[in-house]
Amino acid sequence: MNARDVAVVGGATTKFGVRSATWAELVQEVGVALARAVPELRAEEVDSLFVGAAEPERFAFQSHVAPLAAEQLGLKPYRILQRTELACASGQSAIRSAYAAISSGLSDLAVVVGVEKMNIPSMAEANSSMGCVMDRPWDGPAGATAPPFFAMVAQRHMLEFGTTEEQMAAISEKNHRFANTNPTAQFHEKTFSREKLLRLPLVAPPLRLGDCSSMTDGAAAVVLTSDEQARRFSDTPAWIRGSGQYSDFHNLAHAGSLTDWRGLTRASREALGRAGIGVEDLDLAEVHDCFSISEIVEYEALGLCAKGEGGKFAADGRGDRGGDLVVNPRGGLLGCGHPLGATGVAQAVEVFQQFSAQVPAARQVPDPEWALVHNLSGSANVHSVMVYGRGRAA
Amino acid sequence: MNARDVAVVGGATTKFGVRSATWAELVQEVGVALARAVPELRAEEVDSLFVGAAEPERFAFQSHVAPLAAEQLGLKPYRILQRTELACASGQSAIRSAYAAISSGLSDLAVVVGVEKMNIPSMAEANSSMGCVMDRPWDGPAGATAPPFFAMVAQRHMLEFGTTEEQMAAISEKNHRFANTNPTAQFHEKTFSREKLLRLPLVAPPLRLGDCSSMTDGAAAVVLTSDEQARRFSDTPAWIRGSGQYSDFHNLAHAGSLTDWRGLTRASREALGRAGIGVEDLDLAEVHDCFSISEIVEYEALGLCAKGEGGKFAADGRGDRGGDLVVNPRGGLLGCGHPLGATGVAQAVEVFQQFSAQVPAARQVPDPEWALVHNLSGSANVHSVMVYGRGRAA
Repeated sequence: MNARDVAVVGGATTKFGVRSATWAELVQEVGVALARAVPELRAEEVDSLFVGAAEPERFAFQSHVAPLAAEQLGLKPYRILQRTELACASGQSAIRSAYAAISSGLSDLAVVVGVEKMNIPSMAEANSSMGCVMDRPWDGPAGATAPPFFAMVAQRHMLEFGTTEEQMAAISEKNHRFANTNPTAQFHEKTFSREKLLRLPLVAPPLRLGDCSSMTDGAAAVVLTSDEQARRFSDTPAWIRGSGQYSDFHNLAHAGSLTDWRGLTRASREALGRAGIGVEDLDLAEVHDCFSISEIVEYEALGLCAKGEGGKFAADGRGDRGGDLVVNPRGGLLGCGHPLGATGVAQAVEVFQQFSAQVPAARQVPDPEWALVHNLSGSANVHSVMVYGRGRAA
Repeated sequence: MNARDVAVVGGATTKFGVRSATWAELVQEVGVALARAVPELRAEEVDSLFVGAAEPERFAFQSHVAPLAAEQLGLKPYRILQRTELACASGQSAIRSAYAAISSGLSDLAVVVGVEKMNIPSMAEANSSMGCVMDRPWDGPAGATAPPFFAMVAQRHMLEFGTTEEQMAAISEKNHRFANTNPTAQFHEKTFSREKLLRLPLVAPPLRLGDCSSMTDGAAAVVLTSDEQARRFSDTPAWIRGSGQYSDFHNLAHAGSLTDWRGLTRASREALGRAGIGVEDLDLAEVHDCFSISEIVEYEALGLCAKGEGGKFAADGRGDRGGDLVVNPRGGLLGCGHPLGATGVAQAVEVFQQFSAQVPAARQVPDPEWALVHNLSGSANVHSVMVYGRGRAA
């Protein structure tokens, strides 16, 4: 048989935030939301389930989470059942697995669930667990958890290119503003002006509270199927047109430049190349703003602007409504929170909803045709990119 | 493009056992072994890496292990990088992901590494971590870790069908005998007679020490590619002809019968059906003998014999050399040990080496054409099956 076109044909997310729900209850909740969002979906037709989850073994002391999720969702997968882990990119990784499975003919109709429960009674334990997404035995003793690492990136970017705290605040203001349009976002701070952001406490200099995404509980789910069935679910499927990932180091000693995220450049070129488009064709992008500086570096690595110009790109609003493209209309990781396994799936939900004009007017991108989703993981040592196109199957 | 045929074209394993090597060192070691086993492999041509690992977060306090493995192997994956987890079936799950990726055209040349480091300074912590592959909050307090659960299966099978300890010992004797031919196996006990096995200490009645697989450190790796490149690596590729998985419960309250592993029946039918063969066509099978009773139940669920006849099938040597087919010639989990993520990959290595006549005569299956690999995970609630065929691409 031919390798098939594959699309996201529906999706839903839970409320993101500090939740009393357990890991399993978050999965239940997103299952109910998915059933409402995709009423055509019948459990007995779902042949595969892919679960994106970063650290349930540590946050929830539960492994073998794929069958647990299946049971919570009322699914009995009869072709593929699997959990994928790629730290902060675990959700996108699960979507990529579903895409390959359907394209190859191994599966016909798949559900992807991304979930993370990060707020636990001992936040000291949660924080040490977060540290083990980095190179724990070698970089860990040097204190290289996420905020200090991305603070180093910011300091270096400021040194090399003159990037400012105000430019970083522009990212945070934009994404929190978009989050106000998203009822499932963790943060609905109505008055996140750039001025106010610059007065928030420092977490790791120069990163302030508003520059950092949070430890968040949440789940998201999407339905994927092939060109044979997609139109049964949606008139505006989000077709997966390109995929790329790249990794060339783990230990920070091998990172080379802190500010040249060549992995993203390479992964996005692969994904855009497979889609047959250029970065200038994108109408929107969901990128991994785990910290405000991340989105600035990503503008550059994606080729949206020249190296060193990311801060200006942000301050000029070129990633905002009315700019070159709209970046993180969902509210980003900064505004929505960052439940590791759920984030990549929630980004895909946003792409589908943008394509099908289901989001509030305040963040709807006019008639979008092309979208890119990016996740980084660990110390920005792995970059994962998918490109979605609206329209008919090729 | 067409969905492509995919084959395992080479593989290697480390020595399995109680090792001083760390998680990362086991990956290094299997990388060296793989480079020797597949001298045609060039690191820069490997576009994807799939890592099968069950619980590095708990056993090694390290998450985001895919890029760590890539770094240890000297690989820079430029298309897909991912870790899959499905407890005891994590290794096969990684192979399935690589298969789908190559078949769909997302990847051309992939390495799959399965690895687990289970012997750690606190074996109490290791054992509690093993418990979290079951339904920890609900079944855990009832003591449902693996040995008690499979002991219940054995007790029930004895009650329902008159299965005996001697029949279970026949499984253990066979698999330990085969392990003596395998230098990478954990156990090389030359005198494991059925009589001696029946005098070993009880672990969970009726299961004795020889009926139980062990907490083992080890890694295994295979190379997969499409029909376009397979012959460059091997004259006898192990073509993946079928795949099946099934799960219909997680909590033991939903298990139904303890002795009817309907998930395996369904998964193997799917996999054999896709391959276009019947169970009677198999020349060898690598099945998940985490406990001796498991292999007995698997004979039945696979349809190699009638329900209740698995013990007799074992005692009559129908899964041994000279029988209907050879089951677990590698030595099984009982003889090789069971490093969770490595097991499924090591089974694929055995299939490839059997197809290419690379194993010692004492376990070589004569001119094998078809092989089945099975893994269960958790409380036998998920069953994963792949069918391999030797010969030309279809």
